[in-house]
Amino acid sequence: MVGMCCNSNITRKYKPFPPVNLPNRQWPSKTLNKCPRWLSTDLRDGNQSLPDPMTVEEKKEYFNKLVQIGYKEIEVAFPSASQVDFDFTRFAVETAPEDVSIQVLAPCRPELITRTVESLKDAKRATVHLYIATSELFRDVVFGVSQEEVLEKAVECTKLVRSLTKDDPNQQGTYWAYEFSPETFSDTDLDYAVRVCEAVKEAWGPSEENPIIFNLPATVEMAMPNVYADQIEYFCTHISEREKICISLHPHNDRGSAIAAAELAQLAGADRVEGCLFGNGERTGNVDLVTLGLNLYTQGIDPKIDFSDLASIIDIVERCNKIPIHPRAPYGGSLVVCAFSGSHQDAIKKGFQKQNKNGEWRIPYLPLDPADVGRTYEAVIRVNSQSGKGGAAWIILRSLELDLPRGLQVAFSKVVQSRAEILGRELKSQELVDLFETEYYLSDDIKSSNVEYFNLIDYTITNPTKDTRKFSGIISFKENNIELEGTGNGPISSFCNAIKNKFGITLEVANYHEHSIGKGSNTKAATYIQVNYTDDEKITRWGVGIHEDVSQASIQSLLSVLNNLYEQKVIKI
Amino acid sequence: MVGMCCNSNITRKYKPFPPVNLPNRQWPSKTLNKCPRWLSTDLRDGNQSLPDPMTVEEKKEYFNKLVQIGYKEIEVAFPSASQVDFDFTRFAVETAPEDVSIQVLAPCRPELITRTVESLKDAKRATVHLYIATSELFRDVVFGVSQEEVLEKAVECTKLVRSLTKDDPNQQGTYWAYEFSPETFSDTDLDYAVRVCEAVKEAWGPSEENPIIFNLPATVEMAMPNVYADQIEYFCTHISEREKICISLHPHNDRGSAIAAAELAQLAGADRVEGCLFGNGERTGNVDLVTLGLNLYTQGIDPKIDFSDLASIIDIVERCNKIPIHPRAPYGGSLVVCAFSGSHQDAIKKGFQKQNKNGEWRIPYLPLDPADVGRTYEAVIRVNSQSGKGGAAWIILRSLELDLPRGLQVAFSKVVQSRAEILGRELKSQELVDLFETEYYLSDDIKSSNVEYFNLIDYTITNPTKDTRKFSGIISFKENNIELEGTGNGPISSFCNAIKNKFGITLEVANYHEHSIGKGSNTKAATYIQVNYTDDEKITRWGVGIHEDVSQASIQSLLSVLNNLYEQKVIKI
Repeated sequence: MVGMCCNSNITRKYKPFPPVNLPNRQWPSKTLNKCPRWLSTDLRDGNQSLPDPMTVEEKKEYFNKLVQIGYKEIEVAFPSASQVDFDFTRFAVETAPEDVSIQVLAPCRPELITRTVESLKDAKRATVHLYIATSELFRDVVFGVSQEEVLEKAVECTKLVRSLTKDDPNQQGTYWAYEFSPETFSDTDLDYAVRVCEAVKEAWGPSEENPIIFNLPATVEMAMPNVYADQIEYFCTHISEREKICISLHPHNDRGSAIAAAELAQLAGADRVEGCLFGNGERTGNVDLVTLGLNLYTQGIDPKIDFSDLASIIDIVERCNKIPIHPRAPYGGSLVVCAFSGSHQDAIKKGFQKQNKNGEWRIPYLPLDPADVGRTYEAVIRVNSQSGKGGAAWIILRSLELDLPRGLQVAFSKVVQSRAEILGRELKSQELVDLFETEYYLSDDIKSSNVEYFNLIDYTITNPTKDTRKFSGIISFKENNIELEGTGNGPISSFCNAIKNKFGITLEVANYHEHSIGKGSNTKAATYIQVNYTDDEKITRWGVGIHEDVSQASIQSLLSVLNNLYEQKVIKI
Repeated sequence: MVGMCCNSNITRKYKPFPPVNLPNRQWPSKTLNKCPRWLSTDLRDGNQSLPDPMTVEEKKEYFNKLVQIGYKEIEVAFPSASQVDFDFTRFAVETAPEDVSIQVLAPCRPELITRTVESLKDAKRATVHLYIATSELFRDVVFGVSQEEVLEKAVECTKLVRSLTKDDPNQQGTYWAYEFSPETFSDTDLDYAVRVCEAVKEAWGPSEENPIIFNLPATVEMAMPNVYADQIEYFCTHISEREKICISLHPHNDRGSAIAAAELAQLAGADRVEGCLFGNGERTGNVDLVTLGLNLYTQGIDPKIDFSDLASIIDIVERCNKIPIHPRAPYGGSLVVCAFSGSHQDAIKKGFQKQNKNGEWRIPYLPLDPADVGRTYEAVIRVNSQSGKGGAAWIILRSLELDLPRGLQVAFSKVVQSRAEILGRELKSQELVDLFETEYYLSDDIKSSNVEYFNLIDYTITNPTKDTRKFSGIISFKENNIELEGTGNGPISSFCNAIKNKFGITLEVANYHEHSIGKGSNTKAATYIQVNYTDDEKITRWGVGIHEDVSQASIQSLLSVLNNLYEQKVIKI
């Protein structure tokens, strides 16, 4: 085995991919401003590479979904290879809507072409796709044939397809298209690739209305995506009658750059892209049609494919391919609209709050509105031990409609961090809500059942003088009902005084926030109170109270503090 | 929710990313011919985004692996954020080899910088990394600050770091580097980004020997990778004292083009790349350092990272991140060196057979020798119902050392296809081997235990005349021993005649291949025989025999045919 650090061995074993001589290169100055023609090859190229290929039923379900979301060209099978593939082609031909073209693949072998064309009988729209490998490596090592032999075989087979399809008087009910692939194009001498395609074009006789499709695959991705773009621009500018040709791309992802290759090669002149949903296919897969489509969408270009229910697409793809979508796959991955980092969560929260009025989407860290692919915002903010205050606060806001003041956010985030570290994992939304309700004694369960805590039983507030308020009430504690009385300039101070009078505990209010929750007769008040208690040292606590009555919400927020101090043994009763 | 097909809504909601005005663009004509400086941010940027963050023990194990495989710059923590991060930085500082620089992150907030620098005390090499968001979106929506305020804050914090590090007489034992990130660079006005960095550069005072690192992140990937390359070239050609600057990239993968962005931006002038192993990180992740490194390797450029035991890297990454590597991830995915399609398998097989003598790697469909990342060839060829003859034949060759003739490959592939269709899944290598041994009656279990089959008990071959051979032997069948005799011009024809004499069955040999297996005293002969049997119609069968004695191998290959014909009720005894 060659070690990784033996420079001389590496340079002998692997050669750099040669650059394309393209002195008048145009594509880097262009921008992508239109949607290409799409071909889904999920049912052919994708299915061939599955450890456990699709059943016929799965293929049918997948085909129906492709049609439903808007693909108009679908490569369904290799009908000369097996009866199963032939039969599936018949299903697709018989099921497809009028505007969907069924495409099938065959090698340039005359003995397989008749059967291939047969499989398309009576289709409304059909595309016969032939391929032959043109690179030196394949001609020499795999097939042992010359450039001329390959060219002649391609022409012979193209003529055969022509005679069996558009030139056959019995086949005039079908709109016939023809696709030719110089397989291993990206590793083929460019002038030779052009020469083969010129000969095939002449043999087929395309028109501007029904152009011939030249598919130029990166059968294996062997170079950087700018090199592929150079190759496509070279081809586009050297082939004759460009207006009678549809240039199709078929990038693979061996170097992780299939998306870029497809996009840059469109700048370079390509009209059509072949790929699979979520990039399935042999080895590293074909280019991912979902990412390409949604990349266009986020630039304001309609991809003409409906990704608005992405979950249902993911479901079919995962079920039929039996390969999961990666959690970090662009757009579809379960983690890609999530923010764990506190600063990211804060930024997203502010983005939503300040979203501009004209509807333009400008949210930090989210290039796509999750709602546009049918995702809820609940998934956006996730909280683990590394998260800051913003994330938990966001979830409390979304779940309980409580808009926590900044100081309380900080206090609660420490509680969250400590819990997440103990658990060693992320906290789910519901766990955060439970934690908040427990921490601030909001849960009805706690208040009604746990006799260890202070609960408000009843109270009145009266006005002994114009500027004073008097609290008189009963709180329960350890199965006892305790009567309290105190005066102050409002309900909070009078209740604080009542506490002081009864228990000798001095609570000093440092911070107070209040807002309404809900509308109409269901409106409640939420009160957040920060209290200092000084014994040996000053201790600060936040309390939360929620009630239809604003005064009672305040009193409960103070009881929330009192319960906390008691439970943490800061005070003794 | 905005539907996918409402063109007017899309164009209002999402705006195309504006192109860069770069009239003298140079990068598309360049080629990548050297390895950049790498920074692993797995333990910081990557770990922050895990649903279940790494434990301290996992972080330590991961750190040790990064050092072991060759990373010289490792961002380990955000030490001002928590005691855990501070303590881990201390571990890294105390553990790192002398040539490894420990990098830590902090925002441009003076109150956090002292603690950040403290965490690096007594490091041999350390990099302090400050960031501040510079884009209009972040300045306006998230922070509400002006361009000038951001610039002044960046300068103030840079000076503070300088005073605490390279200008501090007590800190001279450390080789201090400084990295500054205009966060959201790719969405920032380029002239403003240059202006901020000029001011930061002046505040730091870099030298050619110890350049300042300007990290230019695509915090969110918002445009095509050629646009990022344009931005980097613009920055590189507009900043002064370029020789005192290391330009670092930090691409995210929101559009699936982080690899391309990192590679094209290197053409555009960047010197350094920040990323994570297998592309972990917030949302769609950071750029994948494994793919970038091995992309260089396959072009004959030493990545200076040792990927030769990729399985051990995958193991640590999956275990610590608790996120699997996708089966189709470039280089590391379980399926990426596999070929299921028959034509691909044939091509790979031929490629191995004809591999050229000078050691250059030119194998169809395999851009990297699997052995270079510690993978065996066993994984290369996998067989399902869509596979052709080549794959199964390859596995039989690798497992049993049997080099099946083409006709037998075709015959066996039908057996394989039928079995794979029945099971509805891929066949594992061992299942294929079992299937082959059962189909051709090679298994010792079958021969010794199953009395329903013909087994050779004993035989002699004599020479009655110079040109004739006489077979005399005993075969067992259904608990009977049957004596046979026949003559011919060799062992095969004499045994065929013995069969005819005894059972009235005429076997006509159509095809015969033989080769040796193994070496020295363990050498065996493998015989493949194709036999026609004509009753109502002509039936053709292949048989296989293996034995130390060539003649016995031939006889057993004929018994293999006989057993098949009997089991399939073609003949009756």
